[in-house]
Amino acid sequence: MNRSSKERFKKIVGHDNFCDTEEDRLSYSYDGTGREYKPEAVIFPGSAAEVAAIMCLASELLLPVVPRGAGSGMTGGSLPVQGGLVMPLTRLNRILEIDRQNQLAVVEPGVITADLQNAVKRQNLFYPPDPASMKFCTVGGNAAECAGGPSAVKYGVTRDYVRGLQVVLADGRTINTGVRTAKGVVGYDLTRIFVGSEGTLGVITKLVLKLIAQPESKSTFMVLVDGMIRAAELVTEVLESYLPCTMEYMDKTALEIVKDKLSFELPEEAGAFLLIELDGSRDSVESDSARLVKFLDDCRGVLGVRRAKAGTAEAEMLWSARRAISPASFQLKPNKINEDVVVPRSLIPELVVFVEKLSSELGILIFTFGHAGDGNIHVNIMLDKENSEEVVRSEKAKKKLFKKVLSLGGTLSGEHGVGLTKAAYLPMEIDAVTLDVMKGLKKYFDPKNILNPGKIFI
Amino acid sequence: MNRSSKERFKKIVGHDNFCDTEEDRLSYSYDGTGREYKPEAVIFPGSAAEVAAIMCLASELLLPVVPRGAGSGMTGGSLPVQGGLVMPLTRLNRILEIDRQNQLAVVEPGVITADLQNAVKRQNLFYPPDPASMKFCTVGGNAAECAGGPSAVKYGVTRDYVRGLQVVLADGRTINTGVRTAKGVVGYDLTRIFVGSEGTLGVITKLVLKLIAQPESKSTFMVLVDGMIRAAELVTEVLESYLPCTMEYMDKTALEIVKDKLSFELPEEAGAFLLIELDGSRDSVESDSARLVKFLDDCRGVLGVRRAKAGTAEAEMLWSARRAISPASFQLKPNKINEDVVVPRSLIPELVVFVEKLSSELGILIFTFGHAGDGNIHVNIMLDKENSEEVVRSEKAKKKLFKKVLSLGGTLSGEHGVGLTKAAYLPMEIDAVTLDVMKGLKKYFDPKNILNPGKIFI
Repeated sequence: MNRSSKERFKKIVGHDNFCDTEEDRLSYSYDGTGREYKPEAVIFPGSAAEVAAIMCLASELLLPVVPRGAGSGMTGGSLPVQGGLVMPLTRLNRILEIDRQNQLAVVEPGVITADLQNAVKRQNLFYPPDPASMKFCTVGGNAAECAGGPSAVKYGVTRDYVRGLQVVLADGRTINTGVRTAKGVVGYDLTRIFVGSEGTLGVITKLVLKLIAQPESKSTFMVLVDGMIRAAELVTEVLESYLPCTMEYMDKTALEIVKDKLSFELPEEAGAFLLIELDGSRDSVESDSARLVKFLDDCRGVLGVRRAKAGTAEAEMLWSARRAISPASFQLKPNKINEDVVVPRSLIPELVVFVEKLSSELGILIFTFGHAGDGNIHVNIMLDKENSEEVVRSEKAKKKLFKKVLSLGGTLSGEHGVGLTKAAYLPMEIDAVTLDVMKGLKKYFDPKNILNPGKIFI
Repeated sequence: MNRSSKERFKKIVGHDNFCDTEEDRLSYSYDGTGREYKPEAVIFPGSAAEVAAIMCLASELLLPVVPRGAGSGMTGGSLPVQGGLVMPLTRLNRILEIDRQNQLAVVEPGVITADLQNAVKRQNLFYPPDPASMKFCTVGGNAAECAGGPSAVKYGVTRDYVRGLQVVLADGRTINTGVRTAKGVVGYDLTRIFVGSEGTLGVITKLVLKLIAQPESKSTFMVLVDGMIRAAELVTEVLESYLPCTMEYMDKTALEIVKDKLSFELPEEAGAFLLIELDGSRDSVESDSARLVKFLDDCRGVLGVRRAKAGTAEAEMLWSARRAISPASFQLKPNKINEDVVVPRSLIPELVVFVEKLSSELGILIFTFGHAGDGNIHVNIMLDKENSEEVVRSEKAKKKLFKKVLSLGGTLSGEHGVGLTKAAYLPMEIDAVTLDVMKGLKKYFDPKNILNPGKIFI
């Protein structure tokens, strides 16, 4: 990008919002994956009109533009692998409207997910999507990646809460998709083309989000089980009669690395842990909780059930242990490959057995935890990147894992997306004709390939 | 289509499954809208491979192909307005799989919606979408139109239950979209491009459907209210504290025309009627029902609340009265324009006042009923098509209605789609740039414009 081009961008957003110092470029060169690609510059639009002007100019200059939320993505979605501009949408951070009666919110993409959740909670409303990064990730990034979270087992993922979008296209045109209302079938469903498209088809500049009533009550249960396979079986058994809003699990290794966070002694024979939550009206939570505890107490393999009321210190302790798994895992090895595969949940036991075998076969430490209720398992392959031989074995483990997941009718990603890190594996899951149709769609929306190029397809 | 082309189609499906007699053509010339367009022939494929071969040949011949379910659509989606072939998918009617543990079904498009519901119910599972035509419409047609129904207020519409599709494209290529699992974000969301695309982008040949656990219990309430505006207000008030699985209403006229179906005397002062249902676990239904009755009894304008247990004769009576509205309306006038507009539900009272005013201003009988819980109102403009002056006034009423709906932040169709009858009004709701993007999408998927041409866009 030459000086005159830079001046033109500065004219759009103002001098302060176009940054190309070494520090600025470095600050926006990485995301949750730990890889690094430096952009030529970082541009901070302050309005949808500015985004449109930026895209117009980028289109003229054939300059890559990588939209970015908080950079918390796990597959490199916001990395400028082909240079160009990184465009954080963080200045578009207004909650434009919360409509209590019609249970919807209109927001800009830069709103932080937890901020939206807190704002709607004050009106007795609930925005369920809860990615682990919710305290700093943005709603726009969530939509671009179709983020999930523990509550997905009951409430679904970001896709299920996006009713309409304002999107700036690669050539700078602005479109409005979807509806404000609960239903709407007028014209093609453009909204859901953009949700999960990882910033490769358009730039989301406004979102109309569905909200629901805040559940009145919640109960949290910690269930210690004698082994991982039995725990995985229990998931399906519980879901036959209950619809928990959380159904997380940790295997023995995950449990070990966070045991300091627990306020109680872990029994020697504990082989896995389930974190189950029920929400709803006070009455239904009470009656379901009583039934659930009775059910679990009678279950083979259950070592103990602890109940904590929502909002209490004990519930918080359980959650902080759950959330500590990922950071704490680096006690084991300096690096990890974290894959968010999904299998039909009744097949989790089969996946667990496979992973254990894989681990011992290849001599690699692999542990699992995650959203058992929807079969979305975070498989963590631990390694030391400095050990090139271990890197090879880890990559081998990853590929074998992917093959197994697909053979079980699963998918390679439940919530992280494809981005950069899974692009090479896309053809394992998507057949050639379907892939071709997807690539054609990219070409239709972005013929010059300037929007987040180098992602999803390689 | 010349004789040799016909022979080639016959070779694909067998002689018995290619019909071009006058009777056959007539039988497939109309749908729920009452308009008539005769196809050149009717072709009944028996497999996805036959659909693919048909599309290959149609593509070569530049022959329009109109995929068809049961022809119950309300906007002409299955009418062959440009001739060519009507292609009912009714022979593809197998339920291929019901996976109880993972709560999903794999079905062919010709399966009748109620048959699927009954089949999954036997496994204690539930497929919620319930269009009024569910006893004869097909799952494939439901997906093509993104059908809704009364249960949408709690459970969502067809879109929310389609996880993956097999689709034959206009040129005969077959693609596989989506996933079997609860989550999945690998590649673009092609599934939801096809859902609601009214057979204009591809032919659905297989569906992977999400199921949920069958609710244990259900309660039905009939609430008589002194006036329509108060009834509309009550909808929002109830939804602040409850999530009913049905929240239907009828205005005074709708009530009048079905009063013979009711097993009780209608009080003189009854101005509107709400049909509310709660479902869930036995305990929660009982406790919520008790609370709801108490709440309604204390509500201004409520004349009476009757409760019926689900599955009882009384509940069935209430539903048969509700379903009888549409057929019974022809007592009033020989024809009607039935629009399924949606407004944010808190604005239903404003729409009701507007419709009453419109009715008296234009001297036309208009009555309303429908899915109040999601703001999806069926506005029925009654007329005699033989009376050309009345036709003009009715069309005027329709256009004024649409303008009002859009000014309230609503949409022109909640579940019927655009098809033929709403195509002219599409630009009222969708701006020019967005419309252009939709048309481009059609061109991308169907460059020769052979799949259900003449629909959605004119």
